[in-house]
Amino acid sequence: MPIQLDVQDATAAAIGDEHGLSQDALDNVLQRRVEVHSQIEAQRQAGKLGFLDLPDDEATVRAILSFADSVAGRFRNLVVLGIGGSALGPLVLHRALNHAEWNVMSDAERGGRPRFFLVDNVDPELLLGTLDVCPLSETLFVAVSKSGTTAETVAALRYVMPELKGRLGENWREHLVLITDPEKGWLRELVREHGLTGFPVPPNVGGRFSALSAVGLLPAALLGVNLLEVLAGADHARNLRKQDSHEQDWPYQLAAVHWLADTSKGKSVSVMMPYAQALKEFAEWYAQLWAESLGKSQDLDGTRLEDGRGQSVVKALGATDQHSQLQLLLEGPNRHLTTLLNVREMRRNAPVPAAESPAESIAYLDGHTFQAVLDAEFAGTRGALRHQRRPSVTLTLDRLSASELGELLMGYELATAVAGRLYHVDAFDQPAVELGKRLAKQILRGEEPRL
Amino acid sequence: MPIQLDVQDATAAAIGDEHGLSQDALDNVLQRRVEVHSQIEAQRQAGKLGFLDLPDDEATVRAILSFADSVAGRFRNLVVLGIGGSALGPLVLHRALNHAEWNVMSDAERGGRPRFFLVDNVDPELLLGTLDVCPLSETLFVAVSKSGTTAETVAALRYVMPELKGRLGENWREHLVLITDPEKGWLRELVREHGLTGFPVPPNVGGRFSALSAVGLLPAALLGVNLLEVLAGADHARNLRKQDSHEQDWPYQLAAVHWLADTSKGKSVSVMMPYAQALKEFAEWYAQLWAESLGKSQDLDGTRLEDGRGQSVVKALGATDQHSQLQLLLEGPNRHLTTLLNVREMRRNAPVPAAESPAESIAYLDGHTFQAVLDAEFAGTRGALRHQRRPSVTLTLDRLSASELGELLMGYELATAVAGRLYHVDAFDQPAVELGKRLAKQILRGEEPRL
Repeated sequence: MPIQLDVQDATAAAIGDEHGLSQDALDNVLQRRVEVHSQIEAQRQAGKLGFLDLPDDEATVRAILSFADSVAGRFRNLVVLGIGGSALGPLVLHRALNHAEWNVMSDAERGGRPRFFLVDNVDPELLLGTLDVCPLSETLFVAVSKSGTTAETVAALRYVMPELKGRLGENWREHLVLITDPEKGWLRELVREHGLTGFPVPPNVGGRFSALSAVGLLPAALLGVNLLEVLAGADHARNLRKQDSHEQDWPYQLAAVHWLADTSKGKSVSVMMPYAQALKEFAEWYAQLWAESLGKSQDLDGTRLEDGRGQSVVKALGATDQHSQLQLLLEGPNRHLTTLLNVREMRRNAPVPAAESPAESIAYLDGHTFQAVLDAEFAGTRGALRHQRRPSVTLTLDRLSASELGELLMGYELATAVAGRLYHVDAFDQPAVELGKRLAKQILRGEEPRL
Repeated sequence: MPIQLDVQDATAAAIGDEHGLSQDALDNVLQRRVEVHSQIEAQRQAGKLGFLDLPDDEATVRAILSFADSVAGRFRNLVVLGIGGSALGPLVLHRALNHAEWNVMSDAERGGRPRFFLVDNVDPELLLGTLDVCPLSETLFVAVSKSGTTAETVAALRYVMPELKGRLGENWREHLVLITDPEKGWLRELVREHGLTGFPVPPNVGGRFSALSAVGLLPAALLGVNLLEVLAGADHARNLRKQDSHEQDWPYQLAAVHWLADTSKGKSVSVMMPYAQALKEFAEWYAQLWAESLGKSQDLDGTRLEDGRGQSVVKALGATDQHSQLQLLLEGPNRHLTTLLNVREMRRNAPVPAAESPAESIAYLDGHTFQAVLDAEFAGTRGALRHQRRPSVTLTLDRLSASELGELLMGYELATAVAGRLYHVDAFDQPAVELGKRLAKQILRGEEPRL
């Protein structure tokens, strides 16, 4: 069964008029669905929304599968050098679909797949710490930068390349793959100059929308993820916008509820709380996607906005954060819209054994499985939020399969495009990010920093 | 040098009157310092704020060091079963002070110290996944629950105990340590019944304030952290409240700026953004501390508040989140107060080597170290926030040493106690957390869920 969305607990019927969405307001925005999707379709046809076309890029998928096949069993370590969207895509696929202790398992237990390391910060302890445990001769580096000029990734690559050449001689080329713009930038120059293996990031696919391009798929393939299933799920999600009814279009509904709750009910903070350890990093991926896409101070007509738009994103994890941020969500200011992600069937389960020394206070666990306890805690949190008149929506996945992950990622990317339309901002740029970069460059050049 | 706080970029002088704090308002709250600290001192003397006394608990520290000594080299794996404050304390000390790839290093590289695993969720994949890589005969389990009745921890322990008995026979007792209330609860009963090694959580130390009790210190000692230095740093921090001038009292200043920015300038979201990979988990620890302590709907006089109090907490990481949430912080709604954590000297550093094929766009990295690039990015982000009139404060640590971590943790705990006074709420309870638990229990008992 595909992903299900339940928005009931965000409505006035469930939590009252002050904080819940009225059916009229919701109907109004749902009625704009055909119009919004046709705007998105027009952008897509103008070649601007490449992420929607990624499931059709069979040539890249074939090249990835062929490369993964050619190096099968060859490397003990995969180190991705990338930051932001270049890191979170591979991270979320790996963490959602592979074993919780992948890097600690034996080579045999991993089926000969490499361990996975991510260097997504310029902090020297991360790069050097990773290299401590990854002998170069056993390691494949995948450097990812769409522009080919990302400072953190370029710095890491400048460190790794001479190390590889020094230790491995002529063979160094086999230990480095670059994922970057098909034409330009320093990484592309390196591919040409040294005849390295390169994969493209389509120019019309932004970093935070690149999880289903080679950026996410190449590492995923090396780590044993079934790409075809991921892409089948993504294909399903992108076609939800063509359904006759909004009932089948969870990405649109999700965007509509978030936009309405923010702009009409002051729900300025979006809380992402999956009830699955393997989706912890999905919350990080979502934080980038939602915050960087919608946090804008200029609208689609080019008008400067007095105050900016966009929700803040709080990353949480069920059941863990019940013992952390939940107190604030239940009793703090009523400004949060919480998304609960529930997985019907975990990959495995176990009974909670009977306690040898029964204590009244813990007898309610008797006869249940861990999954049942987790489910009850999810239901308890959802009910407590409702009781406190705090809005929530629930997304239900049948299981953590490759196809459901593909649907989840593409669905959220589509929801973000829709939200951009509703907020009337460009969801595909990130103009302010340049400000800090410019200052950092001036400082490194020894210039007086000024904007 | 101890930790330094710079609040300049949160003031009107730096970012203007609309979003910056006026000197008058800041002076007013700083003048309340002696009064607030005397309220806190009165609570402490009434025996209610045990966290402030933890650095004096020499008996527990000796017992911990003695136990750690007695099992040195004996276990390859340390598995902590705990959730919330029982998990985040040990996690933050370990991640801040140990190697970035601790669990992947060889036993020799770890100096015979165990690998570290944390089961802080009831998701079966986490517990079973951890057990997959931790053969029982090589593993020490440390179960932590202050009350001794925490559902998630009890469930994990009920699973692990029969496994240990079944596989290890009479020796099973040597593989389990319990940290819990000194008198009551199921875990304490187990200590008595089976003669297990137990350590106390003082009854007047709440879970989120327990990092410097046995909860944080026992795992830290097993992982090679210097407890005496941690506690010396904590002792320094708690005494800052006795300084003559607020200039030397960063915890008070920090609380004052956060409370003022929230209540007078609408900075409803506190962003924690350390510029150090090793402090990523510190942001998680802070999120629990700040959100669970201040997110309240009843004030200290027992009055129900129409809307709750407390800031939402956004976890970020420098430089990584410059490519994620920074766009929202710079151009989204001006509702964030960002705390930047800067470390003057990383444990190690490396030069960014010259690029063989120079490209104009990356030449500014030439001749710099990774630390210098990270520092420039920190300064760039700080400058960009100032330019955009978004308030920030900067905490500077000389290095990631055990004593600075102790100062950081105790300083933040003290700041939270101060903030509780300023918000006029009880920073030491978490009444709403019971709501969801009650529903979950009803569901597991097969009762109709109702509050």
